[in-house]
Amino acid sequence: MILVLQSKANSASTDLLVQNVFAGLAKLGLSGNLVQSGDETLITVQEDTRALASHLFNQIPGVAKVIRLAPQYAISSFNQDKSGTTCGATANNRTTIKFANGTEISNTASGSLPIIIAGPCSVEGKEQVVDLAYKVKAAGAKLLRGGAFKPRTSPYDFRGLGKAALEYLAEAKRVTGLPVVSEVMSCEQIADAEPHVDMYQIGARNMYNYELLKEVGKTRKPILLKRAMSATIDEFLQAAEYILLEGNLQVVLCERGIRSFDTQTRNTLDLSAVALLKTLTHLPVLVDPSHATGRRDLIRPMSRAAIACGADGLIIEVHDNPQMAMSDHQQAITPNALAQIAADVQAIHQALTGDRESTTTSANHEPCLVV
Amino acid sequence: MILVLQSKANSASTDLLVQNVFAGLAKLGLSGNLVQSGDETLITVQEDTRALASHLFNQIPGVAKVIRLAPQYAISSFNQDKSGTTCGATANNRTTIKFANGTEISNTASGSLPIIIAGPCSVEGKEQVVDLAYKVKAAGAKLLRGGAFKPRTSPYDFRGLGKAALEYLAEAKRVTGLPVVSEVMSCEQIADAEPHVDMYQIGARNMYNYELLKEVGKTRKPILLKRAMSATIDEFLQAAEYILLEGNLQVVLCERGIRSFDTQTRNTLDLSAVALLKTLTHLPVLVDPSHATGRRDLIRPMSRAAIACGADGLIIEVHDNPQMAMSDHQQAITPNALAQIAADVQAIHQALTGDRESTTTSANHEPCLVV
Amino acid sequence: MILVLQSKANSASTDLLVQNVFAGLAKLGLSGNLVQSGDETLITVQEDTRALASHLFNQIPGVAKVIRLAPQYAISSFNQDKSGTTCGATANNRTTIKFANGTEISNTASGSLPIIIAGPCSVEGKEQVVDLAYKVKAAGAKLLRGGAFKPRTSPYDFRGLGKAALEYLAEAKRVTGLPVVSEVMSCEQIADAEPHVDMYQIGARNMYNYELLKEVGKTRKPILLKRAMSATIDEFLQAAEYILLEGNLQVVLCERGIRSFDTQTRNTLDLSAVALLKTLTHLPVLVDPSHATGRRDLIRPMSRAAIACGADGLIIEVHDNPQMAMSDHQQAITPNALAQIAADVQAIHQALTGDRESTTTSANHEPCLVV
Amino acid sequence: MILVLQSKANSASTDLLVQNVFAGLAKLGLSGNLVQSGDETLITVQEDTRALASHLFNQIPGVAKVIRLAPQYAISSFNQDKSGTTCGATANNRTTIKFANGTEISNTASGSLPIIIAGPCSVEGKEQVVDLAYKVKAAGAKLLRGGAFKPRTSPYDFRGLGKAALEYLAEAKRVTGLPVVSEVMSCEQIADAEPHVDMYQIGARNMYNYELLKEVGKTRKPILLKRAMSATIDEFLQAAEYILLEGNLQVVLCERGIRSFDTQTRNTLDLSAVALLKTLTHLPVLVDPSHATGRRDLIRPMSRAAIACGADGLIIEVHDNPQMAMSDHQQAITPNALAQIAADVQAIHQALTGDRESTTTSANHEPCLVV
Repeated sequence: MILVLQSKANSASTDLLVQNVFAGLAKLGLSGNLVQSGDETLITVQEDTRALASHLFNQIPGVAKVIRLAPQYAISSFNQDKSGTTCGATANNRTTIKFANGTEISNTASGSLPIIIAGPCSVEGKEQVVDLAYKVKAAGAKLLRGGAFKPRTSPYDFRGLGKAALEYLAEAKRVTGLPVVSEVMSCEQIADAEPHVDMYQIGARNMYNYELLKEVGKTRKPILLKRAMSATIDEFLQAAEYILLEGNLQVVLCERGIRSFDTQTRNTLDLSAVALLKTLTHLPVLVDPSHATGRRDLIRPMSRAAIACGADGLIIEVHDNPQMAMSDHQQAITPNALAQIAADVQAIHQALTGDRESTTTSANHEPCLVV
Repeated sequence: MILVLQSKANSASTDLLVQNVFAGLAKLGLSGNLVQSGDETLITVQEDTRALASHLFNQIPGVAKVIRLAPQYAISSFNQDKSGTTCGATANNRTTIKFANGTEISNTASGSLPIIIAGPCSVEGKEQVVDLAYKVKAAGAKLLRGGAFKPRTSPYDFRGLGKAALEYLAEAKRVTGLPVVSEVMSCEQIADAEPHVDMYQIGARNMYNYELLKEVGKTRKPILLKRAMSATIDEFLQAAEYILLEGNLQVVLCERGIRSFDTQTRNTLDLSAVALLKTLTHLPVLVDPSHATGRRDLIRPMSRAAIACGADGLIIEVHDNPQMAMSDHQQAITPNALAQIAADVQAIHQALTGDRESTTTSANHEPCLVV
Repeated sequence: MILVLQSKANSASTDLLVQNVFAGLAKLGLSGNLVQSGDETLITVQEDTRALASHLFNQIPGVAKVIRLAPQYAISSFNQDKSGTTCGATANNRTTIKFANGTEISNTASGSLPIIIAGPCSVEGKEQVVDLAYKVKAAGAKLLRGGAFKPRTSPYDFRGLGKAALEYLAEAKRVTGLPVVSEVMSCEQIADAEPHVDMYQIGARNMYNYELLKEVGKTRKPILLKRAMSATIDEFLQAAEYILLEGNLQVVLCERGIRSFDTQTRNTLDLSAVALLKTLTHLPVLVDPSHATGRRDLIRPMSRAAIACGADGLIIEVHDNPQMAMSDHQQAITPNALAQIAADVQAIHQALTGDRESTTTSANHEPCLVV
Repeated sequence: MILVLQSKANSASTDLLVQNVFAGLAKLGLSGNLVQSGDETLITVQEDTRALASHLFNQIPGVAKVIRLAPQYAISSFNQDKSGTTCGATANNRTTIKFANGTEISNTASGSLPIIIAGPCSVEGKEQVVDLAYKVKAAGAKLLRGGAFKPRTSPYDFRGLGKAALEYLAEAKRVTGLPVVSEVMSCEQIADAEPHVDMYQIGARNMYNYELLKEVGKTRKPILLKRAMSATIDEFLQAAEYILLEGNLQVVLCERGIRSFDTQTRNTLDLSAVALLKTLTHLPVLVDPSHATGRRDLIRPMSRAAIACGADGLIIEVHDNPQMAMSDHQQAITPNALAQIAADVQAIHQALTGDRESTTTSANHEPCLVV
């Protein structure tokens, strides 16, 4: 951390200022070095300050500006001990999440195949979701997604079947064995979903809903955390940190498109964020090409690209009859199209691993089982 | 509404398609006209479809695309009856919100002076907020703001004093008479705030938190709804619609900066959104120059600009000793600086109303008292 | 095209308005249909209006708004005849550009291997560029890139060696056989580059420089047109149209990152734009992962992703000693790293073509040789 | 400037690295201080490095990252000597540009009235522009704008009357006395415009066209430089620096809206950029509400806001019959509407200066006459 000091008229008043700042740091148990650069007087802090609140430094009289050299996400950060986990000694273990049926969502740097989560945008009925569950399983999906509570921009649009949908999802799981992921938007919905759902999704619209993040952090189910549509990478990891700090270490990140200026796609899929996240955090990173593009014809190429740049899996909206979907019909693909994508995933994964590949990122490691 | 039809290989299959779409519209009680434009076959819908869900149209077999000509915010829209209000006959009445002590937040098109809301970012103690309440009142503020529950990007930063802060705010109100506005982020916090707070703020991070919007929609206190940092105008008004639909008609909109690419200001203050909103909705529109700029030196010029382009008021962060503020210290101004801004507001308001001004926007109207 | 008419107080004045608009269309040799939709009166135009200027319609008295259903890029559009080319009968032929030595940049939908263009950001000396040319050729590059004239944000930074650099590039071509691509920013530079360069690059900063586009459109050398950092897809294709309209049909598009809000990468690589462009235009589409990310560690994953989503090639900055590069050193990779990427390209291309693949996009077609 | 050093495995190799960096700085005639902060080893540079190219520092072996504390625009910067000007001794003089007829565009911090430039988007004929020149002069404009060469996104749209338009503008100037500003997009157009135009406009699309900036920098006419639609403030000032470095010190900056995600306005007017620029540079700053909003109904409120936040003037598109305008008809206002805005400007200026105002920004100063 670097503290930029206020400018003073003369050297005597600067001296006093500097003394005050050193005294302020000392109260926090910290020490610093004084340096001059161009017109600026700086004090660099020697210790690690990531878990210290910014106002502690701003409040030191004489400090004009605080420059952090390291971001504020201690637990999700790649090079950190995840104390309190079962990981034990090794700091660099990547997170693997294991469901009761053995299904895993894990960092694929170890060479495991990326996972596919699929299902309808909205659960529209028991028959529909059970039928689709069979079909997406046959096409290669390992988890079932389905919206029970739907956040919709317009209050006049379809907002989901609610609790009934949760029961339909549970039935689909009972017959297919697929673990179920579904979005929750409030404490009440967490309670409703608890008996039926294996993984809670926090949607893009609620990434900054810190009260909700704390609530799901108190549960012990895995969390699928989607990036808000204008969240920086730092904000995304700090949102994850809210969950992790409550003791729930089973967080999976999901890039789903950011808001940009072009109107031909629903959002702009930010795949370099995926490649970047893989260098910053041990958490798995998925991609949602459905919401990112909002266009059926772009789901396949963007799924391919996501896997090629290192995503640990995909979450895709599937509908038997996309035109009839009660929400987001433009982006739903058929089970057949999903099967093609699953084949693509396998082909790309195989092409980029195997004998010809020996990069540092695929170094052997023991998975950290947090379940 | 315009429905763009799928292309068909020959005119016979197109004829069938068209028949199906007309039949689909008929089931919804709607009628349409068939037209050809370039390569496209279109059916235009005759009736008002604003309160009808989009999937109803997408599901009609043969429809490729739905183009809405009018946005989906029936209640907040300028030209709508606000049925259920006390407004009575006139459709174009603008909303005025009246607090128990007679203070009003109202659409200033009628000529009333824009309002100023001020106070600390975070409530830091009883003495602090009481003292500041006196000072901002003396400087011209008509409501007191103060954060009890603070949404913070980093979980390691100061998150507010919570319930204690609510009591301090109530005390500040008791001694100064200023109504109090404070942010709530969950149902639990609404319950905590209920006895102490006169107006609930929904922060920018929670504008898409539809569960929370519905909850505050069920209360009968005025709501200060801030625009999310990448919300379109349509999304902003649709968020307001969630509150209005629950029967709470006392909604005040607040522009607080959007996310853009430049890093020299915290956000980009979107003042044309303010001017635009004044043409679209009867709800009052405030501006928060503090969060928009994040820079103390830009609060005054941007406050002036906000009033000049038609904002109905300002909400400004004030601190006695900005450097010592426990949150957002870079953007806090002193009570003295607030007094200068209050004088600016008065000067600009006077310059732009009075004899020389007779635009259609300042036409006489009876205020719609929704309290 | 749809014309939205102004609202009128009564049906008589609306009738007059409608007559006027029909008369206005008739003067342009066009016809329309009158329809009513909600409160709006519309006239839909029957004919194709893509090559007609917008003001012709705005000027018709009574027209409030013009909605185009088809974009204004007639020549680059996928479904258009490229009259004047040697393509002959088939409208859907994709463009292939052929250099004197047989190297081709072509739409890879036909199954050809994506191309790699590589070389230093700036030409720094004869020895450097000749040496690098050998190395990037050995690593798999088919064209040599190198900046002679460098657009730099700061006028105090290194702006390239100018004409001397062009001669060094020519020498590198002479010894390696690699065709050379280099950026031009003015007519004068086009003249300077003419004897030495095989393909002119129009950089992102000049995509809206229509005078320059017209100038290179008058040459008969292939053009590498980079997308401006906040250009919409429509604007990008319309910029290409400026070149095509001058009779130069050898245009290659290049996505190189758009401006967004996150600061951890130089730009945001918009790969869905690549997939989208492949559905809209017959022109080849390349990706520049170097400028898009600005980070050496992200070049490889994003190169993989680009090829996976259908890019027809890559343009990558290479330096023997990246730290010593006189411009953009953070994003330069070594020749060895380039060889890894070339192997990736081959592996992904093979994985996604071959027996298992039979999508409509890889349908057989005869390449359209425009040289 | 702060240099962040590469991490090394042990202290011996770090010592060597540090020695190398100090040696590298010494070669540049610079000195530094070594400090440790958290895990990072830093060397802070003591001297002013603004006019030194970045690659000089990146090339020093051992340097991982260069952090500039001051931006790279030495001449436009507020606190710099404008050596070579007639300003003489005082460094903080603000720029005033004086035309032959006595008209001035100047920094209004001195209390002068903001200037209004007005005229048609495109010159459409001699009669039109002469007639409009009379009318905008009567309404309060001090310069006449008019497009002869029009950059248009679609090559199929009207691109201006070219040289003939320049003669019409000259005629309009002859009869009204109003100095003329018109856009140039190439060297050739500069030559064409030279006899007829008093101020060259560089449009938003050409702000990054450094060759053009250098060309107009070689002329001795005032330049109106518009901000590119996604230019940062730093890039904007660095573009100005290209002109200033050629010895032309008569640069006027113009904010005209940035590209954002909302589609209801053409661009997003960034007024905080105006307030910010007034703290960073001595150059005058104008606002173009016409291109920023693209909507006739928002020109007046945004003109008011621009003046209120400190803009030194406005440039506004006016047409006698906006519907008939051959370009940008949606944003043209009538001469009558311009007169209202001129009255607003005066009213706001008077309200915010005069007796009640005594801020530091309106401190007395001698205008720097650069003509």
